[in-house]
Amino acid sequence: MNAVASADCREDALAALAALRPPVRVIAERERLVAFEMDAYVQRRETPMAAVLPDTEDQVREIVRALARLGVPVVSRGAGTGISGGATPRADGVMLVLTRMRRILSVDAAARLATVEPGVPNAQVTEASAPAGLYFAPDPSSQVVSSIGGNIAENAGGVHCLKYGLTVHNVMAVRAIDGEGDLLEVGGEALDAPGYDLLALLNGSEGNLGVITRATLRLLPRPEATETLLAAFGTVKSAAEAVGAIIGAGVIPAAIEMMDRVVIDACERYMALGLPRAEALLLVEVDGGAEETAETRAKVEAILAGCGVTEVRVAKDEEERANLWKARKGAFAALATVMPDYYTMDGTIPRRALPEVLEKIYALGREYGLVIGNVFHAGDGNMHPCIFYDSAKAGELERSEELGGKILELCIDHGGTITGEHGVGIEKLEQMCLQFRVGEIAAFHDVKRAFDPEGILNPGKAVPSLKRCAEWGGMHVRDGRVPRPDIPRF
Amino acid sequence: MNAVASADCREDALAALAALRPPVRVIAERERLVAFEMDAYVQRRETPMAAVLPDTEDQVREIVRALARLGVPVVSRGAGTGISGGATPRADGVMLVLTRMRRILSVDAAARLATVEPGVPNAQVTEASAPAGLYFAPDPSSQVVSSIGGNIAENAGGVHCLKYGLTVHNVMAVRAIDGEGDLLEVGGEALDAPGYDLLALLNGSEGNLGVITRATLRLLPRPEATETLLAAFGTVKSAAEAVGAIIGAGVIPAAIEMMDRVVIDACERYMALGLPRAEALLLVEVDGGAEETAETRAKVEAILAGCGVTEVRVAKDEEERANLWKARKGAFAALATVMPDYYTMDGTIPRRALPEVLEKIYALGREYGLVIGNVFHAGDGNMHPCIFYDSAKAGELERSEELGGKILELCIDHGGTITGEHGVGIEKLEQMCLQFRVGEIAAFHDVKRAFDPEGILNPGKAVPSLKRCAEWGGMHVRDGRVPRPDIPRF
Repeated sequence: MNAVASADCREDALAALAALRPPVRVIAERERLVAFEMDAYVQRRETPMAAVLPDTEDQVREIVRALARLGVPVVSRGAGTGISGGATPRADGVMLVLTRMRRILSVDAAARLATVEPGVPNAQVTEASAPAGLYFAPDPSSQVVSSIGGNIAENAGGVHCLKYGLTVHNVMAVRAIDGEGDLLEVGGEALDAPGYDLLALLNGSEGNLGVITRATLRLLPRPEATETLLAAFGTVKSAAEAVGAIIGAGVIPAAIEMMDRVVIDACERYMALGLPRAEALLLVEVDGGAEETAETRAKVEAILAGCGVTEVRVAKDEEERANLWKARKGAFAALATVMPDYYTMDGTIPRRALPEVLEKIYALGREYGLVIGNVFHAGDGNMHPCIFYDSAKAGELERSEELGGKILELCIDHGGTITGEHGVGIEKLEQMCLQFRVGEIAAFHDVKRAFDPEGILNPGKAVPSLKRCAEWGGMHVRDGRVPRPDIPRF
Repeated sequence: MNAVASADCREDALAALAALRPPVRVIAERERLVAFEMDAYVQRRETPMAAVLPDTEDQVREIVRALARLGVPVVSRGAGTGISGGATPRADGVMLVLTRMRRILSVDAAARLATVEPGVPNAQVTEASAPAGLYFAPDPSSQVVSSIGGNIAENAGGVHCLKYGLTVHNVMAVRAIDGEGDLLEVGGEALDAPGYDLLALLNGSEGNLGVITRATLRLLPRPEATETLLAAFGTVKSAAEAVGAIIGAGVIPAAIEMMDRVVIDACERYMALGLPRAEALLLVEVDGGAEETAETRAKVEAILAGCGVTEVRVAKDEEERANLWKARKGAFAALATVMPDYYTMDGTIPRRALPEVLEKIYALGREYGLVIGNVFHAGDGNMHPCIFYDSAKAGELERSEELGGKILELCIDHGGTITGEHGVGIEKLEQMCLQFRVGEIAAFHDVKRAFDPEGILNPGKAVPSLKRCAEWGGMHVRDGRVPRPDIPRF
């Protein structure tokens, strides 16, 4: 398949879409396609041959069938907030835009389930469930905009996934159209289901295995009490060790977020919050029954005291709680004040490796002459180093990308992974060659073929070809934490 | 492939196994193969052509490769406690017996992980973790014998999965040999992993996608406190409604088990425990921090009081707690006193449907003239109706199996599934045709092919052929709860 569609191919695709009954909304004018040129992975843009905006699952099925017959790639997209490029268009493909499918079909308070279309923004699920005292736990920072279909496709996380899990842990069932245009309905209300776990497989498959057309989401009761505290530390290391101490004591907070001085300073400049002077801050939130929560908060305070904390602030009410969160929630906006550009990484490491890996990340920054700030989900080891650069300076973007790659290798070396919640998309295809064995990459392709034999669903995303790994310079192999020398690098 | 191996084929397989270096233990004498003729699904037995007992992952790989070259089916087996026939041998296949691979490779207390070989019995993981104050949560009633490989293959549950999840929720990583003899290493310590979720896919795949050779299991800290109470009810309905009331109030107990009068009477006859006189008993266990647990227990008592409970007994110490559990844990042994034979079903329904479905199950029993007793994981809607029969009476076994099928259909009709924790095996192949659409069954076969292109791994288990569904009398289609008339039944 050519990267740029031939004029004929485009004509055929447009004709096939125009022939659908009932008619479906198609955008084909180049100037109007600009809106779909990229997602939040702004490093890459491309104009798709067309965009199609279905209103119903039946239309999605017919669209996929029509394009499958022509062998035209289909890239699904919701709000386009993904930052690994999972919804980056292809010039030889059609964007399947699911934003018009945004009905909340039901909220079943007794069963604690919401059934929604893929274009429903994450936050609206919680809004619709609030009258019943329920909410949808996954809370990616894009949650006001990003939609459920994309959340599922990327297996999105958020600040509370330490306690409440990723999207995959909060989706009970999905309906999806596979690469041949067939409907799959997987999962259900029961904890277990017979057959292979296609539900987990579709979660995080980045649009490669099916187009999500409907999802049944698990809702949780609002906890009776929530307590939030902000802890300041004189060193990043002591903050990182405190994270291990809290979890090691058997406490599972709803969130443990960490910010280092680069981020603290940026927040202070941007929002003048009067944050403690510190090398690192931890924001710890605990929730549950009222007594239990107070008890846990006291336990956390005691643990922090033993970890060299220099100041602890505990929110006394909802307003103070919102204030403590302000820095964390505004951090990414604040970071724009540091340098013209920054690049947010996403990798996960075992929690115990936090102190060591953070130290190595700063050392890498010094080696590359680039500033790195850290603001991340420390509790579950999901790191988001932000690399600052100036794209106007020759070579800085490339250097920052190279540094980013090194950081991901560091995660793998410490038994971690190259993504925590943002997906692979096109951003991390090469690091996939590091993360997995030849056999595993091959298994991914085999699975892909099972759902999409023609390879029309989001081709070139999430899983690299073995050829690409070979060209890039080799596949490493994990075994424990040491690359095994007995498997050929090719 | 013929169901009975030709003599030639058997000779070839034995020769290939004998040629492996280092040598691997093979059992080929017919009289010694009796030990592997069946698993705990005692309705079906078959003599395999041979049994092979590897000591290492490398041997497993070489065995699978050798048999794959010959196209000889491989049925994996651990302790053989599965009750849906997942490890029933084939006369034309080799049993791959993993009981010699039973090393606990590591218990990492800080990371709360245990890494074990597949033949390690479930309970030994907890034993090995106990010195660190940790345990492995999944607790199938076979846990003293049943091994981790089989637990993963069947995605086993237990009495505490209401709060702590099924096996899939407690496995962080596995190593497995696929149908081509290639090693797959999936999952890791991090919550999220890039690539498709092959870890979830291998969990519950019933030996069809790979042979588990190693597993990394999540360990939990022993809760500070556990409280157990036994509640008696004058009707099954009020007990079932109490389950909904407890969960509806936002309480998540560690377990809610239910027993009806048939089971209570059998336990009383068998163990003389002095159980309350009741139509139904609920055993409710809550755990967590000490204060939180006492608070929750009080809350549960208050809820029960509002649900027509006739008596509540709260365990005051560990001994009383063990006593309360005695009936539940001994129930299946006690049931052998009711009739010569019984048949335990396994299906799951949405919790809210419990009162209605239980009533319908008893009605079906009356219709078939067979006694049914219920002892099950009520909290997660995982039912285990036991159908009593006398295999010496002509037609009773068949009638009990037919009744079992009807009960599973009932589960599907109420939005449930045909298995909760026992798997499909060969027992429920036909009900799979009811549970899934043609497209979904086809997707299962496509996924199978991705891992096992020659179809040598446990063929004929877990997923029915579309042909079998057609011969059996049709595929139904779920859509909501009403079979859709627009899809042809064929």
